[in-house]
Amino acid sequence: MPVSNDAPAKGGDPRPIGVFDSGIGGLTVVSALRRLLPHESIYYLGDTARVPYGGKSASTVQRYSLEVASLLLRENAKTVVVACNTASALALSTLEGQLPVTLTGVIRPGAQAATAVTRNGHIGVIGTRATIKSGAYERALIALNPDVRVVARACPLLVPLIEEGWLESEVTDKVLMQYLEPMIADGIDTLVLGCTHYPLLRPAISRLLGDAVTLVDSAENCATAVRALLQEHALGASAEGAGGLHVALTDAPDAFLRVANEALQLDVGEIQLRTLI
Amino acid sequence: MPVSNDAPAKGGDPRPIGVFDSGIGGLTVVSALRRLLPHESIYYLGDTARVPYGGKSASTVQRYSLEVASLLLRENAKTVVVACNTASALALSTLEGQLPVTLTGVIRPGAQAATAVTRNGHIGVIGTRATIKSGAYERALIALNPDVRVVARACPLLVPLIEEGWLESEVTDKVLMQYLEPMIADGIDTLVLGCTHYPLLRPAISRLLGDAVTLVDSAENCATAVRALLQEHALGASAEGAGGLHVALTDAPDAFLRVANEALQLDVGEIQLRTLI
Repeated sequence: MPVSNDAPAKGGDPRPIGVFDSGIGGLTVVSALRRLLPHESIYYLGDTARVPYGGKSASTVQRYSLEVASLLLRENAKTVVVACNTASALALSTLEGQLPVTLTGVIRPGAQAATAVTRNGHIGVIGTRATIKSGAYERALIALNPDVRVVARACPLLVPLIEEGWLESEVTDKVLMQYLEPMIADGIDTLVLGCTHYPLLRPAISRLLGDAVTLVDSAENCATAVRALLQEHALGASAEGAGGLHVALTDAPDAFLRVANEALQLDVGEIQLRTLI
Repeated sequence: MPVSNDAPAKGGDPRPIGVFDSGIGGLTVVSALRRLLPHESIYYLGDTARVPYGGKSASTVQRYSLEVASLLLRENAKTVVVACNTASALALSTLEGQLPVTLTGVIRPGAQAATAVTRNGHIGVIGTRATIKSGAYERALIALNPDVRVVARACPLLVPLIEEGWLESEVTDKVLMQYLEPMIADGIDTLVLGCTHYPLLRPAISRLLGDAVTLVDSAENCATAVRALLQEHALGASAEGAGGLHVALTDAPDAFLRVANEALQLDVGEIQLRTLI
């Protein structure tokens, strides 16, 4: 692969952090990165021509993720953030094996935060069908603490509800309770929001679950992990000026971009269209 | 294109009818075709690696539709059925311009049935975002009868609810009423189910709307149009024996195939996996 990931320039590495997701949901990670690392430039790529990944097979998600991450390397990304739980669950090790760059997914940071905050050791995980079926969160949680008990549930209606903009609605509350009630009854005290769309439902979920359950937001914890990685590998930008944000999509943006922009208060500016073959 | 669509063999044309959809929903059209044309063989291709089409742009849907329909021609399809409202709305004329085969979409047959059954000339249409945004149903309806009044509404939550298997649930009823109530208040007497998934919600919609609104099922009317086309072009199979059904998908099938199989009582047998590049 004709990519150079050489030593950083003096006074900081100005190359962008590459971030990808199956669609728009990964902007929650971008939002967290911009709060935590305001001097870093970000190149975001959303594979909206093939969104969602969450119902697709492992081999298809791996193929798509390699194509998308390779484009980020062609854009000179100094590190790649897999801002998609499905791609992190199914494709992170494939990417690590094939790409000459450091990578950060959302699963391990989320699992670390969950094991740190749980008091009774009983953790719930919600995500797409593909993420939950992969068992990636269970493996990551149990690797960190073999004593935790994990209950995981696929919630395929949440992404469509979020994309419809029904962030506060009676229907969304009912769907959430249908998914979450068995976990609450089961005694979880921590819930991992295992999909980058879900932080947009954080207010509704908090209101429904109250203080008894701590929510772990994979976007926030992923951004913290990226900051640590940049420090460890001396990849940080110089602490001067605000970093740029470049957003590219593989298909024309739809209404959900407006929803995400409003909820995240991101200024994504002009969207570039990139075709992947 | 290396495709032969020559004259039918003596005693009927044994080549399959090619049917495609973005995913599994087009099996409602297959179900209708098998009831109406039991001697015909069918080759069905669902583009599950890139499903859904309903939120994507016209140019992306056209590119995908051309790739999928071309594969059906390589499978020797004698005619191609676009069993997807989004692809019919956005790509049918592209396909007609580029492929050496007769094509049947779902929009025109649905519009014909709707103008035939409406009494007060006030027709509602529900579909995906892309179908509704295209205005294809309005154009088809008004071309048939310039006096009809059309009210159209995108219902992006219905496909995910159907794929979750929530065909009869309080949540689905609430979502349906949120989408349909303004149309009812507006005085429609006919509702076009403008997405091949929606016939699976026909019982719930009928129950909610009662007898005042006639439902027009694009799957049924598409099958009737295919029968007429086969007769007109002398493409029918001989009236002996049952036709075969071959189902191929571009990604591994998920849980929704089971939902569709049960609801449609189709015996799809073994699923073939086809990769499109």
